Amino acid sequence: METFRVKSEKFTYPVVTGKESWRLFRDVPQGRYSSIFVVTERSLWRRWSKRFIEESGLRTAPALFVPSGEPSKSLQMLERLGGELLRKGADRRSCLVLFGGGVVGDLGAFLASVYMRGVDCIHVPTTLLAQVDSAVGGKTAVNLGEMKNLIGTFYPGRMVLSDPRVLSTLRWRDFRSGLYEVVKHAILDGRSLFKLLETSTHTLRPGAADALESIVARAVKVKVDIVNRDEREANERMTLNLGHTFGHALEEATDYSRFVHGEAVAWGLLAAARLGRRLGLLPATDSDQICALVRRLGPLPSIQDLPPAKILRLLPQDKKAVGGTIRWVIPEKIGKVRVVTGVPRCEVLAAFREIQAMK
Amino acid sequence: METFRVKSEKFTYPVVTGKESWRLFRDVPQGRYSSIFVVTERSLWRRWSKRFIEESGLRTAPALFVPSGEPSKSLQMLERLGGELLRKGADRRSCLVLFGGGVVGDLGAFLASVYMRGVDCIHVPTTLLAQVDSAVGGKTAVNLGEMKNLIGTFYPGRMVLSDPRVLSTLRWRDFRSGLYEVVKHAILDGRSLFKLLETSTHTLRPGAADALESIVARAVKVKVDIVNRDEREANERMTLNLGHTFGHALEEATDYSRFVHGEAVAWGLLAAARLGRRLGLLPATDSDQICALVRRLGPLPSIQDLPPAKILRLLPQDKKAVGGTIRWVIPEKIGKVRVVTGVPRCEVLAAFREIQAMK
Repeated sequence: METFRVKSEKFTYPVVTGKESWRLFRDVPQGRYSSIFVVTERSLWRRWSKRFIEESGLRTAPALFVPSGEPSKSLQMLERLGGELLRKGADRRSCLVLFGGGVVGDLGAFLASVYMRGVDCIHVPTTLLAQVDSAVGGKTAVNLGEMKNLIGTFYPGRMVLSDPRVLSTLRWRDFRSGLYEVVKHAILDGRSLFKLLETSTHTLRPGAADALESIVARAVKVKVDIVNRDEREANERMTLNLGHTFGHALEEATDYSRFVHGEAVAWGLLAAARLGRRLGLLPATDSDQICALVRRLGPLPSIQDLPPAKILRLLPQDKKAVGGTIRWVIPEKIGKVRVVTGVPRCEVLAAFREIQAMK
Repeated sequence: METFRVKSEKFTYPVVTGKESWRLFRDVPQGRYSSIFVVTERSLWRRWSKRFIEESGLRTAPALFVPSGEPSKSLQMLERLGGELLRKGADRRSCLVLFGGGVVGDLGAFLASVYMRGVDCIHVPTTLLAQVDSAVGGKTAVNLGEMKNLIGTFYPGRMVLSDPRVLSTLRWRDFRSGLYEVVKHAILDGRSLFKLLETSTHTLRPGAADALESIVARAVKVKVDIVNRDEREANERMTLNLGHTFGHALEEATDYSRFVHGEAVAWGLLAAARLGRRLGLLPATDSDQICALVRRLGPLPSIQDLPPAKILRLLPQDKKAVGGTIRWVIPEKIGKVRVVTGVPRCEVLAAFREIQAMK
């Protein structure tokens, strides 16, 4: 088990990774809360609740169920859950345990941040993606129509407990989705995590808790370090957006139905690597290495049918854009990225065509 | 003009009262924002925009219109406005000017707090109620179904500019609605504001900017002082809830259609005064004085037809209730209140019957 501490504006909270980390829930002063509710997905809770309750010592656990999938990250779902909390007697001293993946975490933490102007929440991420990324750092969000994460808050949980054993029931595709985010962290952080991924590609699988334990811990450390330096995304935190500018456009162009999030990010990483090389910022060897690792992790849904012009049109909607300019996060080498503005449209187009042509 | 400074968690902001206070908008570094939008009501903006723009120096002012009335404080309206902001190009460095009463202020500030995880906002309250109460202190909110202000955040504006001249177009009923909140502040604060109200009842009218200037300033000071001591409503800020426990129940029992907010609070103040006397906490003379002032300010919509049992049933839903117990704010004298729990149901019922019997 490893514990990383994140300093947020109002308090410091632990992110605990490793087998048995759910036991750390016992540190929660349950008596301080008037009630504790679990926000989760029905099948996930059916599978894991017994073990979680046993290890965590959670005394009572009325659950609120969220349908799986991105459409649940909506204001309508927020309204439904808010009403349910109210009917079940939640008050301002209640606490929400967010047991699930990115959707449960983003939506549930947003709910926690606005229900009676804010109740505590605790993240128990159950997907690789949520463990290494979305549950750490305090960003909460719902989508508004086509616009991903347009509405949200900065509202960290009191604790993040990431046990790799829960990943054993992940679909392979969702598992890989998380791995792509780990690759992103590796590109930000340096060669050692990147090399570990390169050498363990063939052993990584949802049930490999031991191998995952160290990878999750190292990926979490990358994110924690960045968030600790820049919680509000004034500067450095923006680098976590690597691969996401194209990624979001691809998700939007396909109505969020073709890719799971990490797959779209994977394409975005490929595009960023190619764009970096085109702009003369990233050496060809590093670019190739990034592309090779991403491709090796598994098959990605095709992007060949997507009209490049359409994808480019969807780019400036990215909300990281300030005053209409896209801030591209471009690798300079494995372990270093740079935020670049004013990238010519023709280069972006060419980079996208390059990844479309990838076999 | 008077300026009060409110210390919030992240910054200190000025609340400026008095004629010409809109000119203080010139202190806003407009160039720092990528765009500025006005959230307002159509008729209000038609009437006052020319003057506001002239005095404030606001350079461009694309407006988002909110229909007047409590139903606009909804997640649906938040969604509509969020989409409108996005289409109009608002990004995370935009700023919202909230030009209106409590609905515009509560909804607009909630929107500001969650749009792209938070953009700046500036309050320009245009009702007496908003000037003395809702625009000060950083509470934002929308309603969820029947439950008033269930969803919201703490998110103060960068500035609050309260010009009494804008009150001249208030309907009398809305004007009185604000006066009842001023009475509440007077009960919290002490005899001098209370006496001022007693002696000026007959001269107070929407167009009496000079008289209002000093009353608004004094009422604002009460709120600012309390908020400065307890922004998050851990303790003292709860006293601002005086009159609101019954008030909310009355509004809910009548589907928010019979009372304007301050009228319901007025009945709540009468009930609190009677309850205080019944509990032996408030001397009869003070109780009578409070009741006399409230009654003198104008006619209130009747409550005679409302079944007391129904009103009492609606009370524990109040979200200030922690773990199901109602915390009553009860005057001990004019200028001092106390938070009381465990008030017997029969006393509450009797107090409500007393105000129902008032002629």
